[in-house]
Amino acid sequence: MKVSVIGATGYTGVELVRYLLHHPEVEIEMLTSESFAGKKISEVYPGIKCDIVCERLNIEKIKSFLVFTALPHGTSAQVVGRLFDRGIRVIDFSADFRINSARVYSSWYGVPHPREDLLSRAVYGLPEIYKDKIKKAVLVANPGCYPTSVILALAPLLKNKLIRKEGIVVDSKSGVSGAGRNPTLQTHFPEVNENINAYKVTGHRHLPEMEQELGKIAGEKVKLTFIPHLIPVNRGILSTCYADLVERLTTEDLLGIYAEFYQGEPFVEILPAGSFPHTKEVLWSNRCRIGLNVDKRSSKVIVISAIDNLVKGASGQAIQNMNLMCGFEEKMGLE
Amino acid sequence: MKVSVIGATGYTGVELVRYLLHHPEVEIEMLTSESFAGKKISEVYPGIKCDIVCERLNIEKIKSFLVFTALPHGTSAQVVGRLFDRGIRVIDFSADFRINSARVYSSWYGVPHPREDLLSRAVYGLPEIYKDKIKKAVLVANPGCYPTSVILALAPLLKNKLIRKEGIVVDSKSGVSGAGRNPTLQTHFPEVNENINAYKVTGHRHLPEMEQELGKIAGEKVKLTFIPHLIPVNRGILSTCYADLVERLTTEDLLGIYAEFYQGEPFVEILPAGSFPHTKEVLWSNRCRIGLNVDKRSSKVIVISAIDNLVKGASGQAIQNMNLMCGFEEKMGLE
Amino acid sequence: MKVSVIGATGYTGVELVRYLLHHPEVEIEMLTSESFAGKKISEVYPGIKCDIVCERLNIEKIKSFLVFTALPHGTSAQVVGRLFDRGIRVIDFSADFRINSARVYSSWYGVPHPREDLLSRAVYGLPEIYKDKIKKAVLVANPGCYPTSVILALAPLLKNKLIRKEGIVVDSKSGVSGAGRNPTLQTHFPEVNENINAYKVTGHRHLPEMEQELGKIAGEKVKLTFIPHLIPVNRGILSTCYADLVERLTTEDLLGIYAEFYQGEPFVEILPAGSFPHTKEVLWSNRCRIGLNVDKRSSKVIVISAIDNLVKGASGQAIQNMNLMCGFEEKMGLE
Amino acid sequence: MKVSVIGATGYTGVELVRYLLHHPEVEIEMLTSESFAGKKISEVYPGIKCDIVCERLNIEKIKSFLVFTALPHGTSAQVVGRLFDRGIRVIDFSADFRINSARVYSSWYGVPHPREDLLSRAVYGLPEIYKDKIKKAVLVANPGCYPTSVILALAPLLKNKLIRKEGIVVDSKSGVSGAGRNPTLQTHFPEVNENINAYKVTGHRHLPEMEQELGKIAGEKVKLTFIPHLIPVNRGILSTCYADLVERLTTEDLLGIYAEFYQGEPFVEILPAGSFPHTKEVLWSNRCRIGLNVDKRSSKVIVISAIDNLVKGASGQAIQNMNLMCGFEEKMGLE
Repeated sequence: MKVSVIGATGYTGVELVRYLLHHPEVEIEMLTSESFAGKKISEVYPGIKCDIVCERLNIEKIKSFLVFTALPHGTSAQVVGRLFDRGIRVIDFSADFRINSARVYSSWYGVPHPREDLLSRAVYGLPEIYKDKIKKAVLVANPGCYPTSVILALAPLLKNKLIRKEGIVVDSKSGVSGAGRNPTLQTHFPEVNENINAYKVTGHRHLPEMEQELGKIAGEKVKLTFIPHLIPVNRGILSTCYADLVERLTTEDLLGIYAEFYQGEPFVEILPAGSFPHTKEVLWSNRCRIGLNVDKRSSKVIVISAIDNLVKGASGQAIQNMNLMCGFEEKMGLE
Repeated sequence: MKVSVIGATGYTGVELVRYLLHHPEVEIEMLTSESFAGKKISEVYPGIKCDIVCERLNIEKIKSFLVFTALPHGTSAQVVGRLFDRGIRVIDFSADFRINSARVYSSWYGVPHPREDLLSRAVYGLPEIYKDKIKKAVLVANPGCYPTSVILALAPLLKNKLIRKEGIVVDSKSGVSGAGRNPTLQTHFPEVNENINAYKVTGHRHLPEMEQELGKIAGEKVKLTFIPHLIPVNRGILSTCYADLVERLTTEDLLGIYAEFYQGEPFVEILPAGSFPHTKEVLWSNRCRIGLNVDKRSSKVIVISAIDNLVKGASGQAIQNMNLMCGFEEKMGLE
Repeated sequence: MKVSVIGATGYTGVELVRYLLHHPEVEIEMLTSESFAGKKISEVYPGIKCDIVCERLNIEKIKSFLVFTALPHGTSAQVVGRLFDRGIRVIDFSADFRINSARVYSSWYGVPHPREDLLSRAVYGLPEIYKDKIKKAVLVANPGCYPTSVILALAPLLKNKLIRKEGIVVDSKSGVSGAGRNPTLQTHFPEVNENINAYKVTGHRHLPEMEQELGKIAGEKVKLTFIPHLIPVNRGILSTCYADLVERLTTEDLLGIYAEFYQGEPFVEILPAGSFPHTKEVLWSNRCRIGLNVDKRSSKVIVISAIDNLVKGASGQAIQNMNLMCGFEEKMGLE
Repeated sequence: MKVSVIGATGYTGVELVRYLLHHPEVEIEMLTSESFAGKKISEVYPGIKCDIVCERLNIEKIKSFLVFTALPHGTSAQVVGRLFDRGIRVIDFSADFRINSARVYSSWYGVPHPREDLLSRAVYGLPEIYKDKIKKAVLVANPGCYPTSVILALAPLLKNKLIRKEGIVVDSKSGVSGAGRNPTLQTHFPEVNENINAYKVTGHRHLPEMEQELGKIAGEKVKLTFIPHLIPVNRGILSTCYADLVERLTTEDLLGIYAEFYQGEPFVEILPAGSFPHTKEVLWSNRCRIGLNVDKRSSKVIVISAIDNLVKGASGQAIQNMNLMCGFEEKMGLE
């Protein structure tokens, strides 16, 4: 099966290429890159063993069964739309098809939605929640990295109506690769190294995505306070979530509920009581590890999840979605 | 004025020595170290210009007006007690005299309090809250690093009864020097580097200290959920605090209240609306920088504070306390 | 084919387990660990998907065709000896069978060699140099991490007698995992982070190993000056080698000679003129990347090689050796 | 005494401001910055306590007795020339007045020298070598960071004709702040972190500067091979220098010669035999620490020096030069 990657030379693009090269059922047809057109991907990333030459995007030339788009928001929707119109399946890494409402989208992203007509066709690509829909999807919106870590952490609680829908606090810590490969002062080594800071404190674009999806799971409106932090590591997201329990439950009770909720899910691991995840345990893997604790004093539950932002938070999840869309074994190429 | 440091070769001890060497009004009489007795402090830390030879502790030999004790809890109380009995002023870095109740102390620290009789004599050494008491104190309990960052962040809200006393969430991120200089697997470079993790999720010893002090400020019992995280940096604590406002207030309203609360305090800086602290801005300084934001959607206020855990969180604060106790200018030797 | 790992919970041990789990032709029979006996390897390293329980070493119980030993020097030779006596093939990670002379061994390692009788049976496991011997070996001494990086960098020059045998300078920089998993002050995070230092300046144990092997390649005695440096990264070795050319050759001439020398070698990559390796390009892979430059002003050639110390410098190389010893494809399980 | 800083918002500029603020004899008249004109320096660097507003450069307005110029090469010479013409003393951070020959300058820097007439007026600002000249200088060329670390390491050997003038190898490792504050892909956090690499292998601009100065000290032409490496730390340079001894001397002999050479120098520290510097020992200080070892096997001497690239390698050295030029105590404001 032929696949292509549009925007192959960003950090998520190349991570995707790495997985595709080892996937037994697919072959890469085309890699596109505007910045590195004419160069082999192995010249841009010598760590990768692949001599495909990156091309400028020419949608008409693509003959793949499925295309991954890793482009900036706004631009992405237009390219996705044209691929969709040509009957090609698409997994889109941008935020363009994650937000169901064009109005909410434009209020957070500052542009009108370029292909509002396709919003109803897009499936939110979080396999642990939408497996059946993804299997039939032609357009998958690959989730954001923070939302993946947070939705997986909170879904069992909200689905089972065990916590208040308001007052949820999500404090996330992310490595720097999440900011992409474009150099800025904020990601300049001496500015990040030996530093810890919160950012987008007054509003991060992943918030509406989380609230939308958690709201669907809860069956009613959910309100989060979400503060992301930049940590001097390359990869990894740790999300520490705090919510108010609405009934008296112990850590063990909740662990049982989580185990049941994620039963059979190959990439979600629930840790035993008293254990909590470290990001290093999930780096370079598609796993999400979750630990939790009930703080009886405050009746709060603390749920901590760890993922690799470039794998379960982006490219590994895209492979998982492709496997589901194409009838391959869900874990294929991901171990 | 002669001062001594008991336990001079840990990270807080040597940081204290660094400040004392540049303080215009004091002279170091004695440095003690059990592990490095017989060695110059400059042999243990070549970055420091001081050739005083570390000695084993012999309390009877000390003739200082004031002594700093940087010893493990339990041990510290005994040494502090004997110094106190000899009429020497003490600034104690351990937790032994921070908790007012011997019962609470022994439930968190697992040992009976060795000098319960002195608890009522100890003053909690947070100058922004207890300046007048510190000026008259003979025994100061230097606050913990996390409590310093959290109490300074939340005091104006609790003093003015602007937030609920329950449901406060404190998510703190700390550099590794906070764990001390004793090598362990948890602080082994390859284990910490490229990793993010929460620790002591089921209960950290700094919690009762924070709740005690914030409760006194609030005038009623305060309950926190506190989760510390280990971050691969040497120094710095960032505490992100979330609380529920009890009345409609804007970010600007609160900034005004903070400005008033900390008026004249030389080491607390309130950032303008939309600005939030980075730990790098306070490294190697005694400053605490605080930014805040009201999240209208959730009626929560988010307060973020940054300190250097070894300075305002330990040794700088001890110097500040010494200055107050001895009638020196509060900032002396700290700029 | 059954294999076992003795000393499976160090950094090289677990890296080896990771590769063995994905190797299509082998099955792990036994993992031993004195420190973590009774624990699953996945409890010690949650990042690894393997529930084999570590056992204390009991040589008699082992039924594997081949055993990897990752033990401290001295101890290792005794265990290897007993395995050898039982007819089991061994790949030894220690230095015990790398040095051909028991006298040289004991002068550098400070102990008499426990199994001098086996020294002549051991093959030095650097496949690019000793492929044929490894194929027939029953006991392979897996090379040190620094020697791997240095021998691969200098072999083509010495083999072709292009440089002086004296005055060679090797300046190596290594990540901290090379020091193992045992916590020490030297590897305590705050001591390593934000620091650069040389160590073992007056003599590192890998020196006789390099001189022995390079001497064999050169056909005469070779003298190196070797200074290792500790760098605050987890993985990776960069060796910068300086040697005096004995004839006028250009960078291009030498690149041609290197290309020929390493023709067909799947894991050695020679970079084009003007390109030099970064360690990040080889992390988590068994590759060695080499760049070189002729400095006409000084008639020196500078050769720079990069490897992952835990892979090509240890466990990946061990898999490569196993593949050769067992008739598997050389790259099997390594891509 | 009034001083100004032209180009105050780069890493060396702000480090200089930090020192000037604490210097008892000077007052800052003007700070210029093209990128941040109109902003307080404390807005650009919140870690610094100084509310001077940066201005665009207007040379005519400057009334300072002495000006520091921290501008790119080429540009700097023009500004320095105009300040010089106005009778203002200048300490220039650029390379423009370090190279004595306009021809050599233009061959390495790719531009004709804009003020060749001033080359003979400039004094190379390495106080340990040129103290008397600096005291009388009106224009000081502040040395490069690598040259400072290397010249101090090798000067005693060359001055005393103890090593061969050819075949000297200098392998330097630098933190990332040396590359300045302008963000590039090469200094983007995820590219630098967890990586080690050599750069400018075919020729770094600091080479002619080192050879010129070492040649003057030696009294004859000196040839170096110099390879710089980028290390994931913010600050610090470690230079490991290898040279061939021309007579049989021990480590102790050489340490004696170094002690004599640097006698009375407040910022150079010679370590005892067997000790070698760590960069962390000199961070945030103007010190240069030097250790050395004679490798009898190869008749080479290895000299290792450590400095903070932003202090002794730039701004601290500039303060030291200012102190000498203005008759202040050499250490003033540097401790």
